[in-house]
Amino acid sequence: MFTGLSAFPLTPLENDAVAEATFVRLIERLAEAKVDSITALGSTGSYAYLSSEERKRVARMAVEHAGGTPVFIGIGALRTSQVLTNAENAEKAGAAGLLLAPMTYQPLTDDDVFELFRTVTAQSSLPVIVYDNPGTTHFTFTTELYGRIAELPGIASIKIPGVPAVPEQAQARVQEIRAAIPEHVTIGVSGDAKAAAGLAAGCHAWYSVMGGTLPALAMEITRAAREGRFPDAVAASKRLSPLWELFTEFGGSIRVVAAIAEHLGLAPQASLPLPIQGLTEDQRERVARVIDALGLHR
Amino acid sequence: MFTGLSAFPLTPLENDAVAEATFVRLIERLAEAKVDSITALGSTGSYAYLSSEERKRVARMAVEHAGGTPVFIGIGALRTSQVLTNAENAEKAGAAGLLLAPMTYQPLTDDDVFELFRTVTAQSSLPVIVYDNPGTTHFTFTTELYGRIAELPGIASIKIPGVPAVPEQAQARVQEIRAAIPEHVTIGVSGDAKAAAGLAAGCHAWYSVMGGTLPALAMEITRAAREGRFPDAVAASKRLSPLWELFTEFGGSIRVVAAIAEHLGLAPQASLPLPIQGLTEDQRERVARVIDALGLHR
Repeated sequence: MFTGLSAFPLTPLENDAVAEATFVRLIERLAEAKVDSITALGSTGSYAYLSSEERKRVARMAVEHAGGTPVFIGIGALRTSQVLTNAENAEKAGAAGLLLAPMTYQPLTDDDVFELFRTVTAQSSLPVIVYDNPGTTHFTFTTELYGRIAELPGIASIKIPGVPAVPEQAQARVQEIRAAIPEHVTIGVSGDAKAAAGLAAGCHAWYSVMGGTLPALAMEITRAAREGRFPDAVAASKRLSPLWELFTEFGGSIRVVAAIAEHLGLAPQASLPLPIQGLTEDQRERVARVIDALGLHR
Repeated sequence: MFTGLSAFPLTPLENDAVAEATFVRLIERLAEAKVDSITALGSTGSYAYLSSEERKRVARMAVEHAGGTPVFIGIGALRTSQVLTNAENAEKAGAAGLLLAPMTYQPLTDDDVFELFRTVTAQSSLPVIVYDNPGTTHFTFTTELYGRIAELPGIASIKIPGVPAVPEQAQARVQEIRAAIPEHVTIGVSGDAKAAAGLAAGCHAWYSVMGGTLPALAMEITRAAREGRFPDAVAASKRLSPLWELFTEFGGSIRVVAAIAEHLGLAPQASLPLPIQGLTEDQRERVARVIDALGLHR
């Protein structure tokens, strides 16, 4: 279940409330594209900004409209007790798995993070994806800590932040992680620009920001990789270079993907939680031009 | 009001709930030491980990037991609407000012942060302290952004993260900020180890972690500086070098100060919010030895 394309939809807001009908349409779009799984309330889904009640409701809507596609729910929070509440609500909503990033305000130690995963896996019966996202959590996992956590019963997958650009180095990195964790724990790549490279290097899943908004395109890359046609996957990804460049230039994927969804009418304007204002008008125009030039509407 | 020693008390937890009687005793201790102000729910007060309801209650208790000492309340949160709720609750509680750090999960732009401060100062009638704490927020203020924000009506003070070690450089840095902001906005130093240096370099306030638990000692340093006896302030701070070294070695002040409070019976054991486990037994013993050797119980 923790292989293939896991699509991370936005949770669009309108007037500081979850735009529920819009969110449901995004979920239905993913189910129709036959993504392998949907991860709602990932970083792209603004989990960190939503209240426990909002998250409970979003989890229910996601499962209800996923048409049987497995739904994973992001449960991260700054305080362990809040994480446990989110886990319980996700389980009640019918989630198939949990995604957990070690959010920080005060820096955390390796032992703090290990204990967090130990507590959650001990209390929830759902499989857990370890979410390594240093750009937002500012916590850096060592390979050794991956190993300690992956030994916990209940850990199903690790979402790694990206792989080196050079194929041999990417492969070596994935093999290094592989050697440190039990066989049943899958490795999923994130950082969309490097996803094809990650799949070619041996990752079995792609935890994808872009896949949450443009699922058909992400499925094309994933399918090629799953069928062993790695050059095709890499070539399909390469065609999207102008998009990856905007991710880098505009300081991260969520602002760009929100602008894409807004451009395509899949989200209301200004759909990110304030204080995140999203892209400026000029930046949005550049995104629109890239999207239109690449013919990206799927 | 935004000068002198502002003491930042812990908000001790016990079994994942605010230890209310213990918190009240910490506040009373600060009032008795005649600190210039109390900032409850600063980073040291674990604001980021508490629910809006818990924060409302803590704000009320702080004001109620401060014996007339001005109380500032930390209102930071990841989402602007949550910040506004906290501001309203702090105002209702009788706070004399608000402390606002731009918490981040997704990185924020300068314009995002400016708009956050604009929105809060437009909606609250209380004076606001700009809280620059890059170690926890991972947002870096430029001097130019200090200037833009400090022009907003309602901004009263800037809490800067520290000053360079070399006195001339510290003075130059404070003068550089001074030149960028209106005269009525005070500059307060944080980073306890560098506080005496900051006061000597021209800061008018010390936003102090240590002062929340050992107020008499922090008052001694502050008083010397306020009376122009900078060498005395620096010498008093220098005597505490073994403590400052533990702050650095153990990765930040909050774990050390919580261990001090626990050692002195001012907080229950394991008083920080999980997943923060606090110091190990060995580390606690070292803290206790330093505290006892320096005779720090005030």
